[in-house]
Amino acid sequence: MYSYFCDMLENKNASKTPLSELGEFALINHLTKNFKLKNKSSSTGIGDDAAILQHGKEPTLISTDMLIEGTHFDLSYMPLKHLGYKAIMVNISDIYAMNSIPKQITISIAVSNRFNLEAVEELYVGIALACKNYKLDLIGGDTSSSTKGLILSISVLGSTSEKKIVKRDGAKENDLLVVSGDLGGAYAGLQILEREKAVFKVNPNSQPDLSNYAYSIERQLKPEARKDVIELLDELEIIPTSMIDISDGLSSEILHLSKASNVGFNLFEEKIPIDPEVSLICDEFKLNSTTAALNGGEDYELLFTLRQEDFDKIKNHPFLSVIGHACDPKSGCHLINGLGNQIKLTAQGWKSF
Amino acid sequence: MYSYFCDMLENKNASKTPLSELGEFALINHLTKNFKLKNKSSSTGIGDDAAILQHGKEPTLISTDMLIEGTHFDLSYMPLKHLGYKAIMVNISDIYAMNSIPKQITISIAVSNRFNLEAVEELYVGIALACKNYKLDLIGGDTSSSTKGLILSISVLGSTSEKKIVKRDGAKENDLLVVSGDLGGAYAGLQILEREKAVFKVNPNSQPDLSNYAYSIERQLKPEARKDVIELLDELEIIPTSMIDISDGLSSEILHLSKASNVGFNLFEEKIPIDPEVSLICDEFKLNSTTAALNGGEDYELLFTLRQEDFDKIKNHPFLSVIGHACDPKSGCHLINGLGNQIKLTAQGWKSF
Repeated sequence: MYSYFCDMLENKNASKTPLSELGEFALINHLTKNFKLKNKSSSTGIGDDAAILQHGKEPTLISTDMLIEGTHFDLSYMPLKHLGYKAIMVNISDIYAMNSIPKQITISIAVSNRFNLEAVEELYVGIALACKNYKLDLIGGDTSSSTKGLILSISVLGSTSEKKIVKRDGAKENDLLVVSGDLGGAYAGLQILEREKAVFKVNPNSQPDLSNYAYSIERQLKPEARKDVIELLDELEIIPTSMIDISDGLSSEILHLSKASNVGFNLFEEKIPIDPEVSLICDEFKLNSTTAALNGGEDYELLFTLRQEDFDKIKNHPFLSVIGHACDPKSGCHLINGLGNQIKLTAQGWKSF
Repeated sequence: MYSYFCDMLENKNASKTPLSELGEFALINHLTKNFKLKNKSSSTGIGDDAAILQHGKEPTLISTDMLIEGTHFDLSYMPLKHLGYKAIMVNISDIYAMNSIPKQITISIAVSNRFNLEAVEELYVGIALACKNYKLDLIGGDTSSSTKGLILSISVLGSTSEKKIVKRDGAKENDLLVVSGDLGGAYAGLQILEREKAVFKVNPNSQPDLSNYAYSIERQLKPEARKDVIELLDELEIIPTSMIDISDGLSSEILHLSKASNVGFNLFEEKIPIDPEVSLICDEFKLNSTTAALNGGEDYELLFTLRQEDFDKIKNHPFLSVIGHACDPKSGCHLINGLGNQIKLTAQGWKSF
């Protein structure tokens, strides 16, 4: 884990190329020359006014997100390579959350003169790895200069057959509420990284042993989108009735499904999957691990609802946890703890203005 | 024209709503509630993880651009309403440049705490007007906070029939080089606005008479994408052999067509269409109007090549000027002036790092 900090130190010493040595077009060419088109639906990529797609009769899906230094990420502990990877994960997760397959991405970046060519290349190493692992074609975008910091804007296009698309609005009363993986890890990792940043400021020579926190730090710095869950659902011939990805925290996402589908939800606290390492970190920071799962966000797991009759297909699956069920909309959305107490769910969500 | 400055002064006095009173979701809902879907191909818009499109058998086109305060625009003379409008024009112009029809847009915005709700609403008034005038559906995007200034990232999707798509790579020797409208106006307008900004700093009570510069200022602040030219080409049953829009200046765009199509170009100086007002402004600023057309940029006109046999269809058309022709790639790209001198074209283009 120490290597995260080493990466940054190294970058400050090697010989570097100012971006002013290249123009915009040369920079784009340089950064994208090794990206080859992988999907049949990508007719043409970078190099014209627009890219051309050919999804045949299948619907096309699009999602877009902007990531801003100082608001969405902190480069003092986020290596640029990881940032590039994570930026793609954040976006393709939205397409998986529609039960669809992401296929093309466009990337716009703006950087201040603090960044040199090697730094931008690092970012693209992460982007290229994400494209490789998830079979994505980079088909467009632009680069420009910013007055402050690094800004990334990514759009992702995907497709699937009409009947497989899952929106937020199809949950029915008594449907099961299911989540993939485990929750709260990205938030726990962030606590560790923020603490190490503070230590590093006081003592730049500190060599922290972060091996006990490896899982949580990885959840924060290098999350994976749940392609495997979408593939699993396909294999099991399950089409969820509603689905969303967990970017803002379980609580906020349940409320989104509730509103779109017009149902309430009962969520059982003891069913929420939390990794033991995350529990230990929460203890260390005197945080409630349920709160980390409910409001922490950035886990990029999938939250979905299933018909009761599909339960046998997913029962005891290591990826998937049934954490509650949909109920009458009038009863609203509640967390039910071990004592049977009902606590109303509220959206802490995202509030950075 | 004075009203451009008044707008800004007014904004400082009225009662304003801090964005912190709304969350991200409430802000998005508030800003987008009056955008209704207009295109059959827009299956669903804002409100899920991704938007869904259905372009049937037609190819989908996508283009994306980021606009950053301080790099791409200056709010001291660019009213937010105009910025919203222009941001859309810049993007849809890329789709028209493929001889295609823009249909959907996504918008991500990030604002610092300097901006209040009313300011962001003004931006969306301009965006809504552009969507109305050009029949565009707003189908996605996000809002977030920035540490400094305003950042806009826009993606636009379009479609057309396969055989109508025009790329940059189809120009052949002897094809005619044609440009729509006139050039250099946006650059001339920028000179005027920069001068008035400097005057305004010294004397905030100055009431400049900008009526002699109305056309050029409008070219800078409220450009229109050339939908009409694409419709005209369709009516005339002309499919250009190559096409690009003029965002960086005529010179840079000719070089793009040259490189992609592997042809040279001869450009005749006296054929370059320049509005009389633009010539007068260039005189006033001791600038060469040809240079403004070649390197000024931001005109968002369309530059394309035609087969010689299509010449009769466009001859004397008020929108269109034949300004040169494609030639042997070995001879390269040249401006030929009234004396017959050949001057090699170079890409000044965009260099802001």
